[in-house]
Amino acid sequence: MVAPAVAAPLVIGLDVGGTKILAGLVDRDGNVLAEHEVTSPSASQPGVLDALDAAVEALLDERVVALGYGIPANLERGTGRILHAMNLPLADVDLVGRARVRYGLPVGIENDGSAAALAEWRRGAGRGTSNLVMLTLGTGVGGGIVLDGGLFRGWAELGHLVVREGGLPCTCGGRGHLEVLASGHAADRVARELYGPDADAHELITRASAGESEARAALSDIGGSLGAAIASLVNVFDPELTVIGGGFGAAAGDLLLEPALEAARREAVPPADRTLRLVPAQLGAEAGLVGAGLVAFEALDGIR
Amino acid sequence: MVAPAVAAPLVIGLDVGGTKILAGLVDRDGNVLAEHEVTSPSASQPGVLDALDAAVEALLDERVVALGYGIPANLERGTGRILHAMNLPLADVDLVGRARVRYGLPVGIENDGSAAALAEWRRGAGRGTSNLVMLTLGTGVGGGIVLDGGLFRGWAELGHLVVREGGLPCTCGGRGHLEVLASGHAADRVARELYGPDADAHELITRASAGESEARAALSDIGGSLGAAIASLVNVFDPELTVIGGGFGAAAGDLLLEPALEAARREAVPPADRTLRLVPAQLGAEAGLVGAGLVAFEALDGIR
Repeated sequence: MVAPAVAAPLVIGLDVGGTKILAGLVDRDGNVLAEHEVTSPSASQPGVLDALDAAVEALLDERVVALGYGIPANLERGTGRILHAMNLPLADVDLVGRARVRYGLPVGIENDGSAAALAEWRRGAGRGTSNLVMLTLGTGVGGGIVLDGGLFRGWAELGHLVVREGGLPCTCGGRGHLEVLASGHAADRVARELYGPDADAHELITRASAGESEARAALSDIGGSLGAAIASLVNVFDPELTVIGGGFGAAAGDLLLEPALEAARREAVPPADRTLRLVPAQLGAEAGLVGAGLVAFEALDGIR
Repeated sequence: MVAPAVAAPLVIGLDVGGTKILAGLVDRDGNVLAEHEVTSPSASQPGVLDALDAAVEALLDERVVALGYGIPANLERGTGRILHAMNLPLADVDLVGRARVRYGLPVGIENDGSAAALAEWRRGAGRGTSNLVMLTLGTGVGGGIVLDGGLFRGWAELGHLVVREGGLPCTCGGRGHLEVLASGHAADRVARELYGPDADAHELITRASAGESEARAALSDIGGSLGAAIASLVNVFDPELTVIGGGFGAAAGDLLLEPALEAARREAVPPADRTLRLVPAQLGAEAGLVGAGLVAFEALDGIR
C-alpha cells in the first residue's frame, strides 16, 4: 500500500514594518518558498489589520499549518498582546487571538528584532550556539537574545539601552540610546554634519572604504558606542557570540565591527575582555521573514 | 505508632566577600537559624579555600542537606566553575565540585548579586512576582534578574552596564559603568569633591536629608545615572518591578529612588514610561546570606 503524498507542512511568516508587510511561505528549515508584499496603509489600526489579512490570504493554502508575526512592537509577556508598536498605528490589540479565530491555526508573534535573532540562531551565524545576542542596525536599532537554547521572550529593546546618559534625543523620548548613536539614521546625521545636507550613511561608508580618515574616524566613533552597548549586554548575558545584522551593519562591515570589538573588549568584565566574539549576520534582509516563519513553527510546537 | 522526630532539613549558605565570609544555617523558608563569620585571608587561593571550609565546618551537622555559595565572581554557565572573582584571589576553580567531594552533599553557587535577587524574590520585596530586576548598591554595584519564574543564571554583572560612554574609569578597566556612577564609593567620591577629603557618602546623605540643596542635587545626579541603567534593564527585561538594595541604596532611600524613578521613566520605552515600578529591598544586609541558602535549596531540588 502506498501512502498518499502529503505536502510538507508550511507556515506563513509576516515581517511587519512601518511601510510594508512582507509575507512568506516558509518551511521548517527556514527556506522561503514564496513571498508576497503588501504596502501597509499605516494611517489607522483597521487599515493595518486589513493589510495583514491581505498578506496572509495571498499565500494561504491547505499546506499552511501556522502563522507567525515579526513586528516592531512591545508585547505583553505570556499573551503576546501588542502593547505599543513603533511606526505603526497598533496599540492594545490581540493580533494573535484575532488571527487564531480568523484562520483556525496556531499563531505566534514576536518583536521583529527577536524574530531576526531566532533566524540567525537557527539558520545563520548563530547555528550551534545556546546563548547569543543579536543587534540589527537598520534605520533604527533592534535586537534579540537567545538564552540557554531558547529565544528570550521579553521586550529585548536593545536599541534603547542608554549608552550616553543625557546624550542626543532618541525617537522614544529618551537620550543617548544606542539607536540614536549607532543606527543608519545616526550615520546619516553624522554624514550630513561632515559633508552637507545631501550626504548619508552610504556616502560615509564609501568615503571610509576609500581610506578618508575623517569618515573612518566617524564610523569608528559609531562603532565605539556600539561596542559599549555590546559590552553592557555581554556583562549581563555572557553570550557565546554577538551577531551584528541590519542594512547599515552589513554595509559598514569591519569599518564598524573592528572599533566595536575593541570598545566592547575594553568595557567587558573578565574573562569576556578576552573571549568576547563579534560576527556579522548571515541572513541579510531575509532574517525578519525567516524569523517570523520560525516563530510560527514555535507556536505550532507549543514553544513560548 | 509514632514516627521518630525528624529535624527539618537545613542548608549552609555562604555569603562570600572580599574581607569576610558569613556562613549561616538556613531553613527552606529562608530563616537564618545560626551564623558564623570567618575573616577571609584573601592573599592566596588556598587561604580562601581553607577559610571557606572553616566556615562550613563551623556549622555542619547531620541536619545539613546542601550547601550554597554566593560569591562576587563570574561563573561558567552550566558548571558553576569560577572564571574570575572580584576582590578575591580565586580564578579557574571548581568550588562546587570540590565541596561536593568534600562533604558528599548537593552544592549550589551563584554570583552574590544573583543570590541577593533570589532572596528578595522569594522572601522580600519581590514575593509573588515572576519577573524582576534587582540592583544592590553597596561599595560596588551588583544585581540579579528573575525571568519567567526562575533566577537568571548568566553573569548579570549589572554594575558594569555602560551608562556614560567614555566616562570615569571603573574598577574593571572600563569607563562610565553604573558602578562608578552610583555605588557607595561613587557617593564617597562626590562627597569628597563637595566637602573635602574627610567627607563620605554618609555625610552626603545626612546633608541631603537636612535639606541642603547641593547635597540633594548630588544625590539626584547619582539617582539619574541609576535611573538610566534601570531603564536599560527595563527596556530589555520588562520586569514587574525593580528592587534597589545594598547598604548605600538603603541609606540614601528616596533621596536616590525618586530621581532614579523620574530618570528611568524618561528613558523607558512605552508602556514602561508609565508602568515602571521601583521599590526598596526588604531583607537588608541579610539578603546575601539568605540568597546563598536558597541557592543551596535550588541545588538540592535540582534547579539550575
